[in-house]
Amino acid sequence: MAMKSWLSIPKGSGFSLANIPFGIISTKNDAIRRPAVAIGDHALDISVFASRGGFNSLKDFPKDKLDVFSQPSLNSFASLGRPVHRVVRDYLRDVFRDDTPYPEILKENQALRDSALKPLSDVEMHLPMEVGDYTDFFAGRNHAQNVGTLFRGAANALNPNYNHLPVAYHGRASSVVVSGTPLRRPWGQVLPDPTAKVPTFKPCAKLDIELELGMFLCGGNPLGEPIPVDKAEDYIFGFVLMNDWSARDLQTWEYVPLGPFTAKSFGTTISPWVVLADVLEQFKGPGLSNDVELLPYLRESRKENVIALDLEVELRTPKGVTTKLSRTSSKNLLWSWPQMIAHHTVAGCNIRTGDLFGSGTVSGPDPGTYGSLLEQCQGGKVPIVLEGGEERKFIQDGDTMIIRGCATTADGQVVGFGECIGQILEPVGRDAS
Amino acid sequence: MAMKSWLSIPKGSGFSLANIPFGIISTKNDAIRRPAVAIGDHALDISVFASRGGFNSLKDFPKDKLDVFSQPSLNSFASLGRPVHRVVRDYLRDVFRDDTPYPEILKENQALRDSALKPLSDVEMHLPMEVGDYTDFFAGRNHAQNVGTLFRGAANALNPNYNHLPVAYHGRASSVVVSGTPLRRPWGQVLPDPTAKVPTFKPCAKLDIELELGMFLCGGNPLGEPIPVDKAEDYIFGFVLMNDWSARDLQTWEYVPLGPFTAKSFGTTISPWVVLADVLEQFKGPGLSNDVELLPYLRESRKENVIALDLEVELRTPKGVTTKLSRTSSKNLLWSWPQMIAHHTVAGCNIRTGDLFGSGTVSGPDPGTYGSLLEQCQGGKVPIVLEGGEERKFIQDGDTMIIRGCATTADGQVVGFGECIGQILEPVGRDAS
Repeated sequence: MAMKSWLSIPKGSGFSLANIPFGIISTKNDAIRRPAVAIGDHALDISVFASRGGFNSLKDFPKDKLDVFSQPSLNSFASLGRPVHRVVRDYLRDVFRDDTPYPEILKENQALRDSALKPLSDVEMHLPMEVGDYTDFFAGRNHAQNVGTLFRGAANALNPNYNHLPVAYHGRASSVVVSGTPLRRPWGQVLPDPTAKVPTFKPCAKLDIELELGMFLCGGNPLGEPIPVDKAEDYIFGFVLMNDWSARDLQTWEYVPLGPFTAKSFGTTISPWVVLADVLEQFKGPGLSNDVELLPYLRESRKENVIALDLEVELRTPKGVTTKLSRTSSKNLLWSWPQMIAHHTVAGCNIRTGDLFGSGTVSGPDPGTYGSLLEQCQGGKVPIVLEGGEERKFIQDGDTMIIRGCATTADGQVVGFGECIGQILEPVGRDAS
Repeated sequence: MAMKSWLSIPKGSGFSLANIPFGIISTKNDAIRRPAVAIGDHALDISVFASRGGFNSLKDFPKDKLDVFSQPSLNSFASLGRPVHRVVRDYLRDVFRDDTPYPEILKENQALRDSALKPLSDVEMHLPMEVGDYTDFFAGRNHAQNVGTLFRGAANALNPNYNHLPVAYHGRASSVVVSGTPLRRPWGQVLPDPTAKVPTFKPCAKLDIELELGMFLCGGNPLGEPIPVDKAEDYIFGFVLMNDWSARDLQTWEYVPLGPFTAKSFGTTISPWVVLADVLEQFKGPGLSNDVELLPYLRESRKENVIALDLEVELRTPKGVTTKLSRTSSKNLLWSWPQMIAHHTVAGCNIRTGDLFGSGTVSGPDPGTYGSLLEQCQGGKVPIVLEGGEERKFIQDGDTMIIRGCATTADGQVVGFGECIGQILEPVGRDAS
């Protein structure tokens, strides 16, 4: 039977007692960025909570580290490592339980409730982590297959390396933004038609989303010392939803031979609450099957190691009409997060607390389960019909894209991420002559 | 006639009065990282210098900003902008002039000389900047042509986009290391022969260098607001030499379709002293000619905008035998740094103080002027004969690669970077079964 809270948690809330995700907030009266956890419709300001004795009943936490809860990012807290995340999260959950062993801490402490517990509608969310490096993987094999088929036909859809290693590229850390940040439609070089030799300069006409999971790291390795795959789990702090916005027409022209550049770096949106790795352990299962024999450094002791979350994509037009475009599962990945870490470091590259990994686009094999518009409109050939009859191939100015994700525990509690949302604004004026 | 210094500056030193580069030092007795400038065979500790009144005679400097000289990186100083760099650099040069207008500051202040002026041999150098994002361009067209010819033949050497935009990829910031840091030979996935379908796991057998210039930024743009090419110069802090180590065999297998990943991210070495952009203005001239008509956002008012430095690459074997492998010039670039900035931001990507750009490999068109071993050994076909008769195709364990760069002013003073040096260590033991 599910735990109950003394705090009213709306039925179906993704911020149940089974979750307790961490984020960075500010409020109208206090612009200082500081850590919080989400619970139901509320945020608990853990900088205030910590400073007023909220952690007094928490054993197994180094008291000289309480200042991690007054930092403007979660990096310091993350760097304390997973055993510490676990005890802090479990303690905060216990504080909110109806049968809490610590009623004096918050349940019966009206003064602290008044000062530390804020309606979510009253807090502004910020980037949860200071991102060092951002790496985007390409582990969604259905997406790779779908897009490869559009461009090269089914037989050549996947490159020869695809099933042997987690393909990835270095992304742009500076332009990772928190959910809610509007983005301008990018300008760039585009070939006017596939046979043209000379590009024109224009606003992107094939603006797309990529539905991804994001993973934040809570530790790192010294340069030159790879992380073994079976130890990689220790380096995972938690997860967010991610929209890896993509300018398809810019990308087509620019990406050979060194990969995506301006077509991706104009913005990457993440959801604001980091769901801890421990919380998602219970949702692990098999990913996509891979029939090649993996090299030893990618072989995991644990075979079913891919997190299965229900994901969905929604489009809201400037008129306010919303259409559910896609429903899929994050089990549609060929590689687990530990495999990505093992591969990332195999040649000696160092990773660090705060680094962000993207999964690559998560798509199912069938229509209605795609993580990009490119797949859904079959490369621009088939319009997507929205509620009310409007059509889209790619994103229009004023459109808002919304990604949601959640899973349900065995006892019926929802673990959710909130929304990863972003509106595309009209492009700035430029000289295109 | 060249200025003279009261401090003995060895003839031919790249750290002449015409230079005054900035770096981050520590010393045996003081492990705190702090800023310094290089002058002849000495480093002036400008944290000590600043704290003991060294800048008292400097006008046009905001006195409440003196703490930038006690930071562990140059980012805070850089973010003050080019006009401030200029007055600080000119002032420090004047302090060292034989006919200094401020003899009381250092020339005749033996106590401060004793405490702030250290032999270079007594200081340890660190990364000069905290690197936010690192972007590696591909602006060395001769290199692109040479390597493209090896792989695809001369007619198809350059991709269609090459002359229209500065091709680039996002690199790995975490593994940028300062000159002198040894690197382990990386392991990775390699195809045993070109027709193989299944990779093996082994230490890189084609370990190479890439001779590049690195550029640090001293400012940034808001997300979504591109930097016009004719304003881009304001964002350039200064330059370093760079060795973009490359594992060619890993790269060949992994880089399609998203670009280089583990083949580059195991380490990138930069020289420790940042030569200010203002100092290098005098060495600007034409780059490689480009006969395509550029799109407006890449057209510069100033036509001759590429910095010409003399560059060289040397290999030192474990036995201590050194061979000069290459001499070239940094004028062998198709794109200027302002063009790279304009392109990087054109779609809206934000850049930030401390970001690092690499030029791409600088090669001349002829043997003896190549910036990589891959070009020099013609893809592995022709051994490179070292002094004393040893041969190399690629780098062997224990080899040390040394890059140097300098230019000479109209009045005969040398502006140099010092060395960008790195030794390759044997690979760590791994399970390759």
